[in-house]
Amino acid sequence: MTTELTGATPLTRGSADQAAIDDRYMAAAAALGRRGRGQTAPNPNVGCLIVKDGLVVGRGWCQPGGRPHAEAMALAEAGERARGATVYTTLEPCAHQSPRGPHCSGLLAAAGVARVVSGLRDPDPRTDGKGHDRLAAAGIRVGFGGAAAACRRSMEGYFTQRRHGRPHVTLKLATSLDGCIAMANGESRWITGAAARAHGHLQRALSEAILVGRGTLDADAPRLDVRLPGLEPRSPRRLVLTRGSAPEGWTAIAAPQDIAALSAVDHLLVEGGAGAAAAFLAADMVDRLLLYRAPILIGGGGRHALGDIGLARLADAHGRWRLADTWMLGSDRLEVYERALEQD
Amino acid sequence: MTTELTGATPLTRGSADQAAIDDRYMAAAAALGRRGRGQTAPNPNVGCLIVKDGLVVGRGWCQPGGRPHAEAMALAEAGERARGATVYTTLEPCAHQSPRGPHCSGLLAAAGVARVVSGLRDPDPRTDGKGHDRLAAAGIRVGFGGAAAACRRSMEGYFTQRRHGRPHVTLKLATSLDGCIAMANGESRWITGAAARAHGHLQRALSEAILVGRGTLDADAPRLDVRLPGLEPRSPRRLVLTRGSAPEGWTAIAAPQDIAALSAVDHLLVEGGAGAAAAFLAADMVDRLLLYRAPILIGGGGRHALGDIGLARLADAHGRWRLADTWMLGSDRLEVYERALEQD
Ligand SMILES: NC(=O)c1ccc[n+]([C@@H]2O[C@H](COP(=O)([O-])OP(=O)(O)OC[C@H]3O[C@@H](n4cnc5c(N)ncnc54)[C@H](OP(=O)(O)O)[C@@H]3O)[C@@H](O)[C@H]2O)c1
Ligand SMILES: NC(=O)c1ccc[n+]([C@@H]2O[C@H](COP(=O)([O-])OP(=O)(O)OC[C@H]3O[C@@H](n4cnc5c(N)ncnc54)[C@H](OP(=O)(O)O)[C@@H]3O)[C@@H](O)[C@H]2O)c1
Repeated sequence: MTTELTGATPLTRGSADQAAIDDRYMAAAAALGRRGRGQTAPNPNVGCLIVKDGLVVGRGWCQPGGRPHAEAMALAEAGERARGATVYTTLEPCAHQSPRGPHCSGLLAAAGVARVVSGLRDPDPRTDGKGHDRLAAAGIRVGFGGAAAACRRSMEGYFTQRRHGRPHVTLKLATSLDGCIAMANGESRWITGAAARAHGHLQRALSEAILVGRGTLDADAPRLDVRLPGLEPRSPRRLVLTRGSAPEGWTAIAAPQDIAALSAVDHLLVEGGAGAAAAFLAADMVDRLLLYRAPILIGGGGRHALGDIGLARLADAHGRWRLADTWMLGSDRLEVYERALEQD
Repeated sequence: MTTELTGATPLTRGSADQAAIDDRYMAAAAALGRRGRGQTAPNPNVGCLIVKDGLVVGRGWCQPGGRPHAEAMALAEAGERARGATVYTTLEPCAHQSPRGPHCSGLLAAAGVARVVSGLRDPDPRTDGKGHDRLAAAGIRVGFGGAAAACRRSMEGYFTQRRHGRPHVTLKLATSLDGCIAMANGESRWITGAAARAHGHLQRALSEAILVGRGTLDADAPRLDVRLPGLEPRSPRRLVLTRGSAPEGWTAIAAPQDIAALSAVDHLLVEGGAGAAAAFLAADMVDRLLLYRAPILIGGGGRHALGDIGLARLADAHGRWRLADTWMLGSDRLEVYERALEQD
């Protein structure tokens, strides 16, 4: 539901119909924003939609490297049609001048839009309410609301950085039904099928960086690039978890905590193996699990998906994960689990 | 769709509407039949519904020990209303006289029913088409059809016995997301929650026998009874897989293949542990997997769900299992996998 917070022309609270409409446009803006995921850090991958008389006249998403911003791109498409329009943006428009361009609240005011709905308030102290204040001062109706969960999810790397000072971490595991990632002899190609592997490559494209343990680097010499038509340029930076050194083209990470120091990495994909996965879990630094499960059994001879995660009692394992989504990818099943407990 | 095979008053092929109606009544008959599952071996747990002028006038299911048959029970309820009615029975009515009672085709003819729809033909050579022949000879319209898959599934123990000469085997495992059935120290109470455990008890009630490995018997001393209100009397016979001897109240099974010799066991539930589960899988004697998965991670210190199942190459693991159903039980997820390859 949209809550009108401030506004030069205060409105009565929008009707339920208006709230439902706002929700749908904002969900579409969040989907646009997701296009930039993995490309914009340290800037948020905002999405923006401009609607005039029930028609979408502008669409934008934060561009690789962080500029132009989503609002600027959407305004450029809308042109004169932005006058009197409603703007849906997943994050409050920025309020601070940057050497790289004007701020979006100024651009929106100059374009003469009538109303701005933002999905979430920007925790960046240079904006944090000031974006809406500037808009309101220019006579634009402003409000927060609409598909807040979708907005947060589409920019989870940005919010994780603001809150915890580290990238959002997704741990991907491709296992048999009984939780094996390989045969005893190391054979692991292939456990899952083509559809699941393509989905895994898409996850790479949505991450600024990708990490494997040194054991996997040695065993599989993985390329970790994005082998999907058109998405090859989105191949992420390659990291290896090792107390030793990294080969050419890779960055060595000596401990999970060290990812906090990486610059321009808001989304990290950890692709195993068992040691690396366990290290991130033991450090409580995994925000999402992607479990790709093939309908096969490997049995006790197989390699277990996880090394020791330091669990002392069964009771301590409960309450940490919640199933967020699940669907089929060919004959494999993908399960998405998300952190149920906020990190301390 | 109902296919009218024989009939003293041959019919044009039923309309699509009639086929849809037959399908729904037959699915209801299969659900009735399921009530007898685990109680009727070596007799099939047939279900029966009698419908007159759009009203259900009789319902029956094969009773514990195998008698009365479903049709006899339904006819007793319908009484005079059976005259001119349609009978839905999941399995072709029996045609052979038994010292324990008259055959159902005779009973149905005597009751004056107008039409009999059977879900499946009875492979028992004493019936195997003769049931319908008898009915047709008495001027009753007969046909096979309607919800055949539901009928087969509701009597899968009976059909597995006829086809493979052994009980239908369900392997139940309660695991963490990473496929552990216990902590390293053996702690396994509880991995799953109350709803999943109650569902597991219901599976016991639907089986004539239940088996654990000797390791589990020693470690957990499980009672293996049905602790669900009203279902306590359905607690199954208890088997232990061991090359040694069984304690009082238990039957020792020296190898998976030996279950073929058990009398009056059409449905066997295998509840682990890792050794027993692997022994049944290695013998290719598991027809269904029930995976109760708690949203927890245990990690490499945990005990893996399966011992060695004799898998030589990853490729050999594929194509054997197919996801039949999945749903939530509290915060746990149940996955039902069924054999995708017929047993040789
Ligand atoms: N199915 C799948 O999804 C999948 C994915 C990836 C891999 N795999 C399989 O998994 C196997 C490899 O797994 P693995 O467990 O042997 O190796 P791994 O997890 O890839 O790497 C283990 C290495 O990571 C480093 N490491 C671990 N914990 C650390 C920590 N806390 N701090 C710093 N460094 C740490 C250590 O490297 P140093 O010794 O250099 O310090 C350690 O030897 C292979 O068979 C591979 O095919 C399967
Ligand atoms: N979470 C769950 O769903 C679940 C369910 C059950 C058990 N568990 C846990 O699993 C653990 C026990 O597992 P486990 O693997 O040690 O024991 P197990 O599977 O219960 O029993 C193993 C024993 O079964 C017999 N056996 C195995 N294969 C055989 C074959 N082919 N022919 C004849 N006998 C065979 C052997 O007994 P003999 O040595 O006597 O010949 C063997 O020692 C316990 O920690 C228990 O809590 C968990």
